Amino acid sequence: MPYPYEKLTKLPAREKLTLLMRNEKLFHIIFAEQFGKKTLDLLFGVATKLRKIAKSREGQDFLGNLLAHKSAMLYFTQPSTRTYLSFVRACQFLGMNYAEVRDPSISSSFKGESDIDGVRTFSNYFDLIIMRHAEGGFAERVAYLMNETGRPIPVISAGAGPDEHPTQALLDLYTLNRSFGERAGGINGIHIAFMGDVARGRTVRSLAKLLTRYENIHMSFVSPPELKIKEDLRKWLDRRGAKFQEIEDVNTIIKDIDAIYVTRIQDEYKDESIVEEEVNYEPYCLTMEQVNLMKPTAIVMHPLPRRDELDVRIDQDPRAAYWKQERNGMWIRAALVAYVFNADSLINHYYTENYSH
Amino acid sequence: MPYPYEKLTKLPAREKLTLLMRNEKLFHIIFAEQFGKKTLDLLFGVATKLRKIAKSREGQDFLGNLLAHKSAMLYFTQPSTRTYLSFVRACQFLGMNYAEVRDPSISSSFKGESDIDGVRTFSNYFDLIIMRHAEGGFAERVAYLMNETGRPIPVISAGAGPDEHPTQALLDLYTLNRSFGERAGGINGIHIAFMGDVARGRTVRSLAKLLTRYENIHMSFVSPPELKIKEDLRKWLDRRGAKFQEIEDVNTIIKDIDAIYVTRIQDEYKDESIVEEEVNYEPYCLTMEQVNLMKPTAIVMHPLPRRDELDVRIDQDPRAAYWKQERNGMWIRAALVAYVFNADSLINHYYTENYSH
Amino acid sequence: MPYPYEKLTKLPAREKLTLLMRNEKLFHIIFAEQFGKKTLDLLFGVATKLRKIAKSREGQDFLGNLLAHKSAMLYFTQPSTRTYLSFVRACQFLGMNYAEVRDPSISSSFKGESDIDGVRTFSNYFDLIIMRHAEGGFAERVAYLMNETGRPIPVISAGAGPDEHPTQALLDLYTLNRSFGERAGGINGIHIAFMGDVARGRTVRSLAKLLTRYENIHMSFVSPPELKIKEDLRKWLDRRGAKFQEIEDVNTIIKDIDAIYVTRIQDEYKDESIVEEEVNYEPYCLTMEQVNLMKPTAIVMHPLPRRDELDVRIDQDPRAAYWKQERNGMWIRAALVAYVFNADSLINHYYTENYSH
Repeated sequence: MPYPYEKLTKLPAREKLTLLMRNEKLFHIIFAEQFGKKTLDLLFGVATKLRKIAKSREGQDFLGNLLAHKSAMLYFTQPSTRTYLSFVRACQFLGMNYAEVRDPSISSSFKGESDIDGVRTFSNYFDLIIMRHAEGGFAERVAYLMNETGRPIPVISAGAGPDEHPTQALLDLYTLNRSFGERAGGINGIHIAFMGDVARGRTVRSLAKLLTRYENIHMSFVSPPELKIKEDLRKWLDRRGAKFQEIEDVNTIIKDIDAIYVTRIQDEYKDESIVEEEVNYEPYCLTMEQVNLMKPTAIVMHPLPRRDELDVRIDQDPRAAYWKQERNGMWIRAALVAYVFNADSLINHYYTENYSH
Repeated sequence: MPYPYEKLTKLPAREKLTLLMRNEKLFHIIFAEQFGKKTLDLLFGVATKLRKIAKSREGQDFLGNLLAHKSAMLYFTQPSTRTYLSFVRACQFLGMNYAEVRDPSISSSFKGESDIDGVRTFSNYFDLIIMRHAEGGFAERVAYLMNETGRPIPVISAGAGPDEHPTQALLDLYTLNRSFGERAGGINGIHIAFMGDVARGRTVRSLAKLLTRYENIHMSFVSPPELKIKEDLRKWLDRRGAKFQEIEDVNTIIKDIDAIYVTRIQDEYKDESIVEEEVNYEPYCLTMEQVNLMKPTAIVMHPLPRRDELDVRIDQDPRAAYWKQERNGMWIRAALVAYVFNADSLINHYYTENYSH
Repeated sequence: MPYPYEKLTKLPAREKLTLLMRNEKLFHIIFAEQFGKKTLDLLFGVATKLRKIAKSREGQDFLGNLLAHKSAMLYFTQPSTRTYLSFVRACQFLGMNYAEVRDPSISSSFKGESDIDGVRTFSNYFDLIIMRHAEGGFAERVAYLMNETGRPIPVISAGAGPDEHPTQALLDLYTLNRSFGERAGGINGIHIAFMGDVARGRTVRSLAKLLTRYENIHMSFVSPPELKIKEDLRKWLDRRGAKFQEIEDVNTIIKDIDAIYVTRIQDEYKDESIVEEEVNYEPYCLTMEQVNLMKPTAIVMHPLPRRDELDVRIDQDPRAAYWKQERNGMWIRAALVAYVFNADSLINHYYTENYSH
């Protein structure tokens, strides 16, 4: 009866999703592409209401009781600060219990247990798994397995190998939404540059894909020749008629762009076709001088952590959006967790009752 | 005045207990043998009520307030997933605060502190110590020391070296109780096979001992000749007139048994008399074909994690009880913690008021 | 506009403070010296009320709701048991959410992030940073940076390198206050001996400085010749007219002192001028025989953990104050956290309403 997992892995994301989600009550967050425009708008609305509600003690008390009957397992086998801590805070704001396994050497994998048995164990004790794993596709494998167990629980991918990081894409898009939501057309029509290692940056891939949900977006991928976007993303964008270019010099567009998304070298994901030492990364480090040339309304984004690709002097400039972007991650993840447990309507209701008059 | 600890270590468990428990207000959980039939029935009752109460939001709110004034230190210096997480969930369900030390290298043992001073420190900050330690007898030493301090708190052993794992025995017995509790006679009269490394499996030792609390139990220890049960357990069972046999081929009894308790090789506990490479473990790996020969009402148990000794195909068979067994661990540990703090009667009362009509 | 950090580092603590605290709403806890007599008395009062309130379930429920809208990041990159756990319990008693990073290898420092960016990230998610760091001056650098960000939060140093450990000094002084507070003059006029590695013990430095807040204190620094107090502390005490002596043999004063503060060798802080092997530490290990010579009202203190410098037999003597001292750390840290969030007045009010009649 179960759809064979070996077949599943060969399907495109869209078809995988259909299969993984066939149990309608079950909600896995695995691919950035799974979010349609309507869901994105809903999540952004909930996130913004959450942050307002959390400003008052009464509001925090309401939120802190919302999911007190739910629990989450945070299973992070790759180093993480931001994603981990913002999910922790998401659970805390919603009053959820949680536990963590961050170092697999103190868990039973030590005794030769399979990852899948370990994850099934989590599902026996918790109501949600939030997981980061170095292996691409691991989250979808876990979601698939969940559907086969007698006690399925939702799985949220907090980053899976080099491919997917759906909640990062959400927070990036939410940041654009916060910055451009008020202007006519909102995000529609913006010109965004992705600069740096656009070949391996999973955040770039995921955000670029989600941006095709909007109209008339112009994307410029700015990278050294060795680190251009990969053929699959290029095809994906082409198929959807996205307007994009691949260039090597950001200075040619710096005055025109509405947003620049700087990324660091993803050298923890080795790629044999790239000789790290030969790449000249220096022209892809954003300087204060370049920021000074940008529109006053433009924003500088970065998924963080940064190394040298983002001058610390930019921090003081009002165009620097990356620290806000980081904090947005906490709110959008809280919104997402609430959504997974169908508590988004309660938040909307509370907001309407208390704030909208 | 204090009973010298050196003398204590040489006493049999029963006499140790009498000494450790002489302070009647204090309740340590150290040995499986300390649970009499009456206490077992009480704990099983509380566990089953807990799981029903926790099904509703109102019930979880009741439980989540029950021990909000109590705190636990989880001190785990051996790797653990299941025992650790189920105790965490037990604390969470009861609303307790807790903290953990799982990696002694980040605590003060680094600065040359004795284990006992470390444990006394925990007792200064917390109301309960839940501990796993590689050293056999460490939990009882801690319990002994507690009785000598001015601020004694209960100690629950979550596994102490190769000898004792009392809460695993509880959850195993609770699983038998859940499976056979409804039939005439309950657990009394069942035939249970323990298969695998019955020499070193502390869970086997503890469960076998607890089973002597019941009538007419038939135990078969199925193992390679090198890994038979040890002389002390053999004598212990003999003294109590337990009906047991030691065999090498499970196929001779597979159709008759009511339960099979499969264990993995405990090769983390080195035993110089055993040459691991020479043991043929293959006949002690349970196969789907063997399960198909078992009674329809029989159950397959395993303390988990498993390696190859339990075919993953068995997971789909209704006789597979090990995932339920794992989850039972959470409920029985929650019941035990409630019991230690005398909150079991509150749970019974709430259940009577809300569920039994 | 911002005061250049490079200049700041060269200022004396007092002037640093003035600069760090110029934003009056912001409250960093960095130096022991920052506590004046009035603040010390306030904190001791809150701590003592807290411990009484926490004795009842109703009281714990009050406390456990007090700061439920606040969160703390515990960032400990040096091993710690006592300081870490007592801050955890402080947060728990006050109902605060918290998260921890105890092992920097599982955080983003792995990806080459600067410490300062990491700390700024914490400030994006939390309302308070409690931090221990091996680098002296790190906490003040973080406090300085906080003041420059758009979302400053308080920083509490839980020990910074070899120099400062302000909350240890608080708990030490609180212990003296608990022991001598009832007698005429209170702490004023006591004779306290600091014995052992008084050169490198940051707790000795901090406590000695705070004691100059009191009148007529007599301090004896008892150490091997190689481990005398350093010139800067000597000058500091001289400038304040403190009465102190440096001696090598504790037996000459053992009958006269009111308190002895024993410390262990701080060999984790290497000092090239000291050849550890040549120091004869044996005369600086307090024996039961020496304690028997002390006044009946005298107390033995130790910051713990101990090695051989404090005979375990002393534990049973009523003069042993170090286990109480350890527990005092939990209450004074809870008082401090409450104070940082201006919740001390709520505690005082609750106490007046419920306990003082």
